[in-house]
Amino acid sequence: MELNEALALIESTQKKLFAFGAASSALYLDAVTVAPRDTAEGRGVALGVLAGEQHKILTDPVLADALAVLEAHKGELDRLHARETEELGRSVRQLTRIPAEEYMTYAQLTNEADDVWHRAKEQSDFELFRPCLEKLVEYNRKFAGYYDPDKAPYDALLNEYERGVDTAYLDGFFAEMREKLVPLIKAVGEKPQPDDGFLHRHYPVEQQKKFSDYLMDVLGLDRGHCGIGETEHPFTLNFTNKDVRITTNYKQDDVASSMYSVIHEGGHARYELDITDEVQYTCLAGGVSMGVHESQSRFYENIIGRSRPFIEAIFPKMREFFPEQLGDVTAEAFWRAVNKAQPSLIRTEADELTYCLHVMVRYEIEKALIGGELEVKDVPRTWNRLYKEYLGVDVPDDKRGCLQDSHWSGGSFGYFPSYALGSAYGAQMLRNMEKDMDVWGPVSRGDLSGVTGWLTDKVHKFGGLLTPAQVVENACGKFNPTAYTDYLTKKYSELYNL
Amino acid sequence: MELNEALALIESTQKKLFAFGAASSALYLDAVTVAPRDTAEGRGVALGVLAGEQHKILTDPVLADALAVLEAHKGELDRLHARETEELGRSVRQLTRIPAEEYMTYAQLTNEADDVWHRAKEQSDFELFRPCLEKLVEYNRKFAGYYDPDKAPYDALLNEYERGVDTAYLDGFFAEMREKLVPLIKAVGEKPQPDDGFLHRHYPVEQQKKFSDYLMDVLGLDRGHCGIGETEHPFTLNFTNKDVRITTNYKQDDVASSMYSVIHEGGHARYELDITDEVQYTCLAGGVSMGVHESQSRFYENIIGRSRPFIEAIFPKMREFFPEQLGDVTAEAFWRAVNKAQPSLIRTEADELTYCLHVMVRYEIEKALIGGELEVKDVPRTWNRLYKEYLGVDVPDDKRGCLQDSHWSGGSFGYFPSYALGSAYGAQMLRNMEKDMDVWGPVSRGDLSGVTGWLTDKVHKFGGLLTPAQVVENACGKFNPTAYTDYLTKKYSELYNL
Repeated sequence: MELNEALALIESTQKKLFAFGAASSALYLDAVTVAPRDTAEGRGVALGVLAGEQHKILTDPVLADALAVLEAHKGELDRLHARETEELGRSVRQLTRIPAEEYMTYAQLTNEADDVWHRAKEQSDFELFRPCLEKLVEYNRKFAGYYDPDKAPYDALLNEYERGVDTAYLDGFFAEMREKLVPLIKAVGEKPQPDDGFLHRHYPVEQQKKFSDYLMDVLGLDRGHCGIGETEHPFTLNFTNKDVRITTNYKQDDVASSMYSVIHEGGHARYELDITDEVQYTCLAGGVSMGVHESQSRFYENIIGRSRPFIEAIFPKMREFFPEQLGDVTAEAFWRAVNKAQPSLIRTEADELTYCLHVMVRYEIEKALIGGELEVKDVPRTWNRLYKEYLGVDVPDDKRGCLQDSHWSGGSFGYFPSYALGSAYGAQMLRNMEKDMDVWGPVSRGDLSGVTGWLTDKVHKFGGLLTPAQVVENACGKFNPTAYTDYLTKKYSELYNL
Repeated sequence: MELNEALALIESTQKKLFAFGAASSALYLDAVTVAPRDTAEGRGVALGVLAGEQHKILTDPVLADALAVLEAHKGELDRLHARETEELGRSVRQLTRIPAEEYMTYAQLTNEADDVWHRAKEQSDFELFRPCLEKLVEYNRKFAGYYDPDKAPYDALLNEYERGVDTAYLDGFFAEMREKLVPLIKAVGEKPQPDDGFLHRHYPVEQQKKFSDYLMDVLGLDRGHCGIGETEHPFTLNFTNKDVRITTNYKQDDVASSMYSVIHEGGHARYELDITDEVQYTCLAGGVSMGVHESQSRFYENIIGRSRPFIEAIFPKMREFFPEQLGDVTAEAFWRAVNKAQPSLIRTEADELTYCLHVMVRYEIEKALIGGELEVKDVPRTWNRLYKEYLGVDVPDDKRGCLQDSHWSGGSFGYFPSYALGSAYGAQMLRNMEKDMDVWGPVSRGDLSGVTGWLTDKVHKFGGLLTPAQVVENACGKFNPTAYTDYLTKKYSELYNL
């Protein structure tokens, strides 16, 4: 195959993958927004076919030939094509290493496991889920061997989610978290808590919707290219850098819930919208990794959105949206209320300070499970012990314990650490940003353009043109988790007068 | 290829076509409901790829081989496989007869034409659209030759939309319409019009939404399998017989607009939901033809929905939804108002009586265009002359004249007659239904189960298992357009005391 031919082939292949991805996304978006209750069957058939076609495209020997040609001409490729070759080649290799029949059986297993997990969670019955989880762990250990037989299995899995991250890297990171945050959380726990009762007054959905529109304006999200919808669990979905959707969930008795969902998902959306046109319709479109993505959403949500200057900037406007509910509340009281820190049971509802420890529990369990040092049957006991040790809370049942997250039932082992890494990356980005420019002056006037400009320049615009490690290096310098613990210590010392 | 192999191949092929169709539908549904304004580009790329893949699947020589095997074993196939072979074989043949490059150029042309037509309509400038329309006519004449060189070009096109229908059939049909309806409309026009002012009071959208829910209940539409949304132009979209969506458009100053959209689209949905499971995921899924589909939607909308017994049945309930707006209105006044007949300019807003003549104008123009007896440049003049002749109205501009419909810009010539045929089929179905059972007793109590049962049995359940002609024969007997003119004459004589 000639070089030009190979280039044309990977271009059309990637466009096909984009189309099938967009199609699956549209079906998914419909499913979680407006589709009638009992319509899963046909959608399942359609999604199954699309997944099969995507698999076929990636395992087509002609594509492998084209990629071999490109790899042989590596030196002649521009940055875009070099990275496309690298990433597409990697996807092809990882996929073709898994025997087709194992791939199919595994797809079926995760499909069933999702159902079983839902039921087990509902009934708080770990035993129901245990056999599934055992098989999932077994498959993932096997797949890890396919991915990279030279790595320890959990390292091989981690590398799938966040290229370059391994247990050595994470052990150091979490040791720092454990050392600094466990005592910090304890100290906070001994202080009086701020009053957050006013967050739970009655906030009608229609008013909250208007407030969401305002927040999207503050984030600079162009409504011609970014829509907002409602789903049970908020998420961000990107078709292209000119078509991104976020969703939120309105709770009438909790104004902070949707507010911070919109800012969090808005952060994901900002990232997607700011990616260069150059990579659209290629495998480099979209944020580069889950960890980097989470660094952006959590940057907007926590570092900016829960900062005193930001809240002081938007609070007067917020009172216009909710005059009855917030008329007797000050910006300072609001700032304290949305930063209330308290050990709890559920990760997705955790505050900024305790969040990392929730992730750490999962990291340690996954590491031991995949490493073969922990048996599945012992997961609940370990889970409960670690929650007590790190967060000081007693887990009353598995529903609010080791059955709370969907990740394992979906076959994701090694995904959780990215949540914590993202938060840590963000703190280090803030430190560098503060060196480069006045961050808080404009933020205190509600102007996020400087922040977004910096992040676009260091992170967003590249999409997958750089590797995750390069993006982190670019925005953070050498990764140093103390930036994050320093940031949390400073913030919570001020909030709780430590 | 063995018979079993061929059967397996067409099964998986049809499932793929279903999946790509469902994917395109989901992208379309998103586009017309919630997608942000400026997101057409990425969706266009995705839809283009999906269309290309569908074309590739249908023109794959292996599929042609499989179909040849099945055709050779025709006698051994059951009804389902025999019909699948027939319909799939036909699609393949018709598509492969068009040279690939002409197909691509034509796809591009219709894509451009849509844009040009929108602008031309907006500016009421036929000259802007003329060059496009000339090319579209030329291509369709050529394609007609590919489809069936033995037929006159327009007959070949008609046969694509409604198998078995040709100009001989339609000339007879429209002659009957012209002869009976032109004088009937004239007679109606000489009578005083009912007062319909109360239809245009203020009807808030929220109240109308609740009323829509009620109407869907009356139609027996299971909300677990049938959703309702809002779009500029109402439509029905079917994924499977267990997942159908209808849309409507609420006008605050016109309660009848959404009401009859919901009943019309609800009729389409009824058809789709009642189709047998047997044909799902095959090319026989979905209503058998556009004419038969329209017969069902218009049956529910006009024959039932605008009947006196139906309105008497639902009107008390309707007054509960709109107590202020309809408190001083009687069921009879309402019935008269929603049946007000008056020649007008716009087909989609036409009443039941005059609707057919709008279609007749288009039929005559298409027939002459494709037959080569009318030049594109003379379309506006002919259009205006025919509107004057049949409906007695003066067309003030092309926007409200020959530029009003999107069909020609989309490349559809031969589609319009199905609208009128559908109405006529419905009237004949009513005649047969009345012979078989008590139609109006239950309807006068708001019970449509008998009507739907009859239609399911005679029409709906088959999907594409029967040909359109067989379905019409099954439900109507020998087609006889006088059933329709008799129905209209009787109905409007009563309404207008002729």
